[in-house]
Amino acid sequence: MAEVIGERDGILREELLSFRHFVVETHSLIQKEKNRKFYFCRLPYQNVSHIKEYAGYIRDRFESFVVIGIGGSSLGARMLFESLTETNHNLKKKPKIFFLENVDPEKFKSVLEQIDIKNTCFNVVTKSGSTVETIANFSVILSMLKKELGDNYRENLVFTTDPEKGFLRKLGNQEKIKMFDVPPLVGGRFSVLSPVGLLPAAVAGIDIEELLAGAKKMDLVCSIEEHVEHNPAYLIALSHYIANMRRGKTISVMMPYSEKLSSFVDWYRQLWAESLGKDGLGQTPVKAIGTVDQHSQIQLYREGIRDKIITFLHIEKSDVDYKIPEELPEDISYLSGHSLHEILSKELLGTKAALIKSKVPNITISIDRISSYNIGMLIYLYELATGFSGYLYKINPFDQPAVEEGKNFTYALMGREGYQEKLEEFKELYKEKYKIEVQ
Amino acid sequence: MAEVIGERDGILREELLSFRHFVVETHSLIQKEKNRKFYFCRLPYQNVSHIKEYAGYIRDRFESFVVIGIGGSSLGARMLFESLTETNHNLKKKPKIFFLENVDPEKFKSVLEQIDIKNTCFNVVTKSGSTVETIANFSVILSMLKKELGDNYRENLVFTTDPEKGFLRKLGNQEKIKMFDVPPLVGGRFSVLSPVGLLPAAVAGIDIEELLAGAKKMDLVCSIEEHVEHNPAYLIALSHYIANMRRGKTISVMMPYSEKLSSFVDWYRQLWAESLGKDGLGQTPVKAIGTVDQHSQIQLYREGIRDKIITFLHIEKSDVDYKIPEELPEDISYLSGHSLHEILSKELLGTKAALIKSKVPNITISIDRISSYNIGMLIYLYELATGFSGYLYKINPFDQPAVEEGKNFTYALMGREGYQEKLEEFKELYKEKYKIEVQ
Repeated sequence: MAEVIGERDGILREELLSFRHFVVETHSLIQKEKNRKFYFCRLPYQNVSHIKEYAGYIRDRFESFVVIGIGGSSLGARMLFESLTETNHNLKKKPKIFFLENVDPEKFKSVLEQIDIKNTCFNVVTKSGSTVETIANFSVILSMLKKELGDNYRENLVFTTDPEKGFLRKLGNQEKIKMFDVPPLVGGRFSVLSPVGLLPAAVAGIDIEELLAGAKKMDLVCSIEEHVEHNPAYLIALSHYIANMRRGKTISVMMPYSEKLSSFVDWYRQLWAESLGKDGLGQTPVKAIGTVDQHSQIQLYREGIRDKIITFLHIEKSDVDYKIPEELPEDISYLSGHSLHEILSKELLGTKAALIKSKVPNITISIDRISSYNIGMLIYLYELATGFSGYLYKINPFDQPAVEEGKNFTYALMGREGYQEKLEEFKELYKEKYKIEVQ
Repeated sequence: MAEVIGERDGILREELLSFRHFVVETHSLIQKEKNRKFYFCRLPYQNVSHIKEYAGYIRDRFESFVVIGIGGSSLGARMLFESLTETNHNLKKKPKIFFLENVDPEKFKSVLEQIDIKNTCFNVVTKSGSTVETIANFSVILSMLKKELGDNYRENLVFTTDPEKGFLRKLGNQEKIKMFDVPPLVGGRFSVLSPVGLLPAAVAGIDIEELLAGAKKMDLVCSIEEHVEHNPAYLIALSHYIANMRRGKTISVMMPYSEKLSSFVDWYRQLWAESLGKDGLGQTPVKAIGTVDQHSQIQLYREGIRDKIITFLHIEKSDVDYKIPEELPEDISYLSGHSLHEILSKELLGTKAALIKSKVPNITISIDRISSYNIGMLIYLYELATGFSGYLYKINPFDQPAVEEGKNFTYALMGREGYQEKLEEFKELYKEKYKIEVQ
């Protein structure tokens, strides 16, 4: 706030309050949209018994489980897996969980090497049913499965896709493959609390009811509280908006002091960038990890361009910890008796103080520990903050019009029928200048 | 260039050429500084036989090898390991390689669970000899080693530190522990081609002579060519500088179309941010991975704020590849017969065309394949581009003055002697506003 870091970089309380009427009005619009554009707000209330049941079957029957999906079809599930399962899950527990996202053959190989395809369940996830990377990876896997298992290949597949439309749904109907629905009103990046995220989470042994309970709790808090100073989602949205549009903070850094939350930031990056990056507006989300990036990015954050607002994620308690020995040489005796988690927490405080001194605006979100309930709260918090930000920027946070163009050029380059004109356009546009070759 | 995307966002050839005299002058300054500030330019010419020899001993003697270091003491080594060893190295080869960077206890546990401490060599890397995270992790490991091995614990340690100064050197001398030197004239983020990066690389089985041969080649090219249009390092530096200072491109995105180069970007992020982020200047480096981030960030890159210049890294050939089957349903028949690597490459082209259409300036660096020689070239290329950029921005690219403050607050919070005043300052500065609690 301005009272801490000054008015040039900090936000004034009066500014927040000046949006009072806007917030109240938007709050009521959101409540009305919960069965339409804001349908993701309904997800915490769904019945998940069929998901749990099928996940139980997969857990009993298979040694490995591979999500084939990309973007909104995998980031949420991966975030849940990496934050909520035990360290080294795949070394200790069955089924092992993998994500096949990219069409990078090295990545493909690395997954193949770790699974026995006959004992692996593949969850193909694409809302449209036709995402290039997902279908490409799936096609290769499918031919391998058929070769290994003949007609029984079906049992090793689960599709998560639109309930009616698209290639994958059609194929699933034809071949009688087990399918889960992506709710039509929920876009990929808002779908983690649908079967897209919940099925892989349940297979990984995560308590998905607790996850939804946390989301419900946050929904309750944010539905009741229409005052920006008491509604955490609106406060996050509005402070980022003011920081961006009135203080030039065009970059939103999210910096958890926890390696396990690394992919929470990947999930947030898509949510924030794809929802708000349009009409020449929106912040660029940037991932940093504490303390690692203190040794890489803090120089820039303190003394570079003053274009950042930083959100720290702090875990108050760690389920596991290690104590530094009591007897240490004098040079390092200040470490004696502290624990690793204590040092991590104090480094966060030290870094915050240094940023405050440099007048860098920052927000801290503390959770007592990494639990399904708390992650559920965080998911809902950021989804709602993103949806609310759409009203602030006066843009539609639920579309992604600029993503199509690159796909169309790719189709053209692959010789897909009907894309001849696009190929001509490509040749017009694409020019290489300054080609320097070094042998 | 402006002729492709227009003058508002693109660079004019005349602009590049207007720096001609500056470039020639700086080129000659750099040649003179190669034994001083630009000492990293000498590293490709060092004799590495003692590193190879000791690495050979470690490879024979130990099952695992853990680098304990953070920032410049680990990012380079991790980049070499992740880009240049075989996929799933740790599942197939000995010694397994790990990096203990953060003081996150979960991370610490995850490494401990995968090693047998008696059969593990720990490489403690810190130039100053006193980096908090490194010393904290090392202290815990040291007491475990002593417990397991008694006086023989020494054999499981190698220090890489300043040849004369610091706590670690002192301890190493006292306890007669094997040590390698960080050249005093080379800062952490420029040290990957010193024993900091080379020892772990050699232990991982990487051909470090090839790595240096690539760096030498790039040194040769860039030493001979003082014309900006033919010197790849100067062209990268100058085009980023013009994009930043004259076109408002405050963000430099690096986007490899290869998962293996993910940590090359982590290494670049530190180099670019910590070297140039000072005096209110410098770009914010951002990591993106193709194709994954097409489904997360491309919406923003095309239609968000016009503040980005993008560097693509393209791998022309893949050592491994998978072919999509010939017979596919009609809806997806355009994929038939293509390979995963082909799709990856075409997606890169499609994305580039879409960005060109949106007038986003971009650079592509193509390497024929991921090899030690090529990575050596890239390392030297970016180190020199960064050093050269220091002259453009008129800042010292080799210091990091803003990093100390956070450390000092952390020391104060941990009760280190002599930091009482800092603790008072902390209490003055640190104020929490708008604390919202949700149970």
